[in-house]
Amino acid sequence: MLSLLSLRTQIDAGSLTPRDAIGLCEAAIAEHEPKIQALVSRTLDPAVPAHGPLAGIAVGVKDILDTADLPTQMGSPIYEGWRPRADAAAVARLRRLGAVPLAKTTTTAFAFLDPTGTRNPHHPGHTPGGSSAGSAAAVGAGMLPLALGTQTGGSVIRPAAYCGVVGLKPSFGLLPTVGMKCFSWTLDTLGLFTAGVADAAYALALMTGRPDLDLSATEPGTPRIGVVRQDFCAAAEPEALAALERVRVAAETAGARLRDLPLPALFAEAFGLHGTIQDFEAVQALDWEYTTHRADLGRLLGAHLDAAQGVAPKSYDASLKVADRARRQLPDLFAEHDLDVILTLSAPGPAPEGHASTGDSRFNRLWTLMGVPCVTVPVGRSATGLPLGVQVIARRGDDARALGAARFVETLMGRQSA
Amino acid sequence: MLSLLSLRTQIDAGSLTPRDAIGLCEAAIAEHEPKIQALVSRTLDPAVPAHGPLAGIAVGVKDILDTADLPTQMGSPIYEGWRPRADAAAVARLRRLGAVPLAKTTTTAFAFLDPTGTRNPHHPGHTPGGSSAGSAAAVGAGMLPLALGTQTGGSVIRPAAYCGVVGLKPSFGLLPTVGMKCFSWTLDTLGLFTAGVADAAYALALMTGRPDLDLSATEPGTPRIGVVRQDFCAAAEPEALAALERVRVAAETAGARLRDLPLPALFAEAFGLHGTIQDFEAVQALDWEYTTHRADLGRLLGAHLDAAQGVAPKSYDASLKVADRARRQLPDLFAEHDLDVILTLSAPGPAPEGHASTGDSRFNRLWTLMGVPCVTVPVGRSATGLPLGVQVIARRGDDARALGAARFVETLMGRQSA
Repeated sequence: MLSLLSLRTQIDAGSLTPRDAIGLCEAAIAEHEPKIQALVSRTLDPAVPAHGPLAGIAVGVKDILDTADLPTQMGSPIYEGWRPRADAAAVARLRRLGAVPLAKTTTTAFAFLDPTGTRNPHHPGHTPGGSSAGSAAAVGAGMLPLALGTQTGGSVIRPAAYCGVVGLKPSFGLLPTVGMKCFSWTLDTLGLFTAGVADAAYALALMTGRPDLDLSATEPGTPRIGVVRQDFCAAAEPEALAALERVRVAAETAGARLRDLPLPALFAEAFGLHGTIQDFEAVQALDWEYTTHRADLGRLLGAHLDAAQGVAPKSYDASLKVADRARRQLPDLFAEHDLDVILTLSAPGPAPEGHASTGDSRFNRLWTLMGVPCVTVPVGRSATGLPLGVQVIARRGDDARALGAARFVETLMGRQSA
Repeated sequence: MLSLLSLRTQIDAGSLTPRDAIGLCEAAIAEHEPKIQALVSRTLDPAVPAHGPLAGIAVGVKDILDTADLPTQMGSPIYEGWRPRADAAAVARLRRLGAVPLAKTTTTAFAFLDPTGTRNPHHPGHTPGGSSAGSAAAVGAGMLPLALGTQTGGSVIRPAAYCGVVGLKPSFGLLPTVGMKCFSWTLDTLGLFTAGVADAAYALALMTGRPDLDLSATEPGTPRIGVVRQDFCAAAEPEALAALERVRVAAETAGARLRDLPLPALFAEAFGLHGTIQDFEAVQALDWEYTTHRADLGRLLGAHLDAAQGVAPKSYDASLKVADRARRQLPDLFAEHDLDVILTLSAPGPAPEGHASTGDSRFNRLWTLMGVPCVTVPVGRSATGLPLGVQVIARRGDDARALGAARFVETLMGRQSA
């Protein structure tokens, strides 16, 4: 994979120009894109800023995020050839920092569940996950050092784990969703895909103007970790559970303090209400598309919105109240158990075989609803050679700690990047 | 003015067709628009649904809300001729209900403070207020029975009060902001302009699928009212204070229980931090416009965003914490003082003379930040014949009570509509 920090180090040292760094990505795209199919459109011969802390960094932008210079097609024929006037806020910010938004990456239609044509870079017969399929696959295939995705259920963490890359879903609201096609305003969260944890931290620190998020400024410590199995979900596959166990043993051996953290029933309840909140808002957010283009919505999304029309305001209101209570209680749980972070599964197993499904977000949805920062770290492979990941989670607003602990896990387990 | 409910009653009775109801608006537009200048664009010969609870209702849509069939120009040359692909969620919902989004209404550029060319329907030498200038003026001039606006500081309540109409800013999030040009995602709130309180309640009940918001289903009671003077702001003009006092006396005479409610210092603190939150988010929300079209932003907005670039993440984080504490404390304050609603000023006085300013939002900003439902009710005129309004405010989510108490005030003071 292409490490953002490694490229930046070479650029700072004068051994690589920003233009040549972009050229590396263009060459990698020429090599891998024909089989991966991660990109929807691409700027040819882009202007490359010579200066800026992200000069020379090519970025993939999920195709539900507006770009002024490339079409934004939402993974849907309804938006075929659509050209927004402006860049999404996060894209504009990346340009200010010197980065080159080089390509739009594939997304399931409106970031729901209808699969894309993108292939998993580790095995073409397996899904890359969704909905941010192209962003995860492009970074995983070594075509880009940075990509933007979004998560409403599990659309950053799941595809990142499936494609063997670092996925970062920051605290809710930390990165702006302005210029993102909305699915659920209570849940939609922008996230990043990179080769390593420090790459993601560096980019997030710059994009948010918060230098304390950059790990290069901090000493790695040994985090206090609560292990959560999310027993309110259907059980994970043995290989995913074994990967979690390997991390637990390695972390304990390295001196970290780990304990099992059983989540109170309130969190299982909140988990079960994620869909009510998402669906009530999606009916409104996609009202025009549903009313005027029902047949072109995608098979799964169309049927889902049919059913969602019936979600009652009272159910939505009650679900928001439960979510709010759980959000308030979560920091207390960290304090009570003296924890820095939670360690849990990123996905039920490695990327499923076939392309009919983008996999399952059940180990992600509660955390999206809680608005907490989540980082998935690659931690080895399945028997069939597919990547496995574990997920590190901190309190909302404590993104630096989530990133620090994720780097701890990454270092323990051996960086997976090329 | 054109009352939405009166039109609907005639349509239900068969004495007016939906097409003829739209025709009434078209005739009123032909008569008044040349001097008011409230509209940016208009659908000629619109398709008029024969059925639906809002059939025959022509709606004005503030020009920062996307429409698929009319340009959406944000009050700015940067978006000249811009055509979105989709309708904003609220617009799509109105169409589903049978309404006709007939015209786009003027907005200050990006809903900030640079004035529009719109005239106050009660005096052409005075501002209609902003930023939802055209929506307030179009309803005030009797051109439309319903218009959509947005409020980030005081952009619904202030122009409604200045133009002598009912302005409703519902609880934060009750109406979707999907398809609205974002200024500040923590503050942006969609609102309605109508001739009377019951008109607004009827429309809100339909748009949200919440029949309990429709006042026709409820018996009017005598509300328990806390009078708030907002002493943390510069004092209001004598005529505005006198109007508030007239409402107080009339309400007491009618058997309502009123008491002065001094707001704890926390609320003055929160009021003072509204700008920090708004500005930190606006820098991100308008990043593309600022970076690529600084000279075309508008004089006031350009200078404001120059200064806002310096708002630090730490100040923003601290401000959000204070706002959150105040939001949590506000319901307790209602309970402690045994109140249904707060009664306060809608604006510092009647619409100021001239067109260099859109007036002052200082009596609105705290309530926008609190996310509470606010209704401004016309309560007579100034010595120069300009409308005055008072503002009724309830707990967040208690929109029905805000509307019920606003109707109580409206009935007391004599409906101002023609």
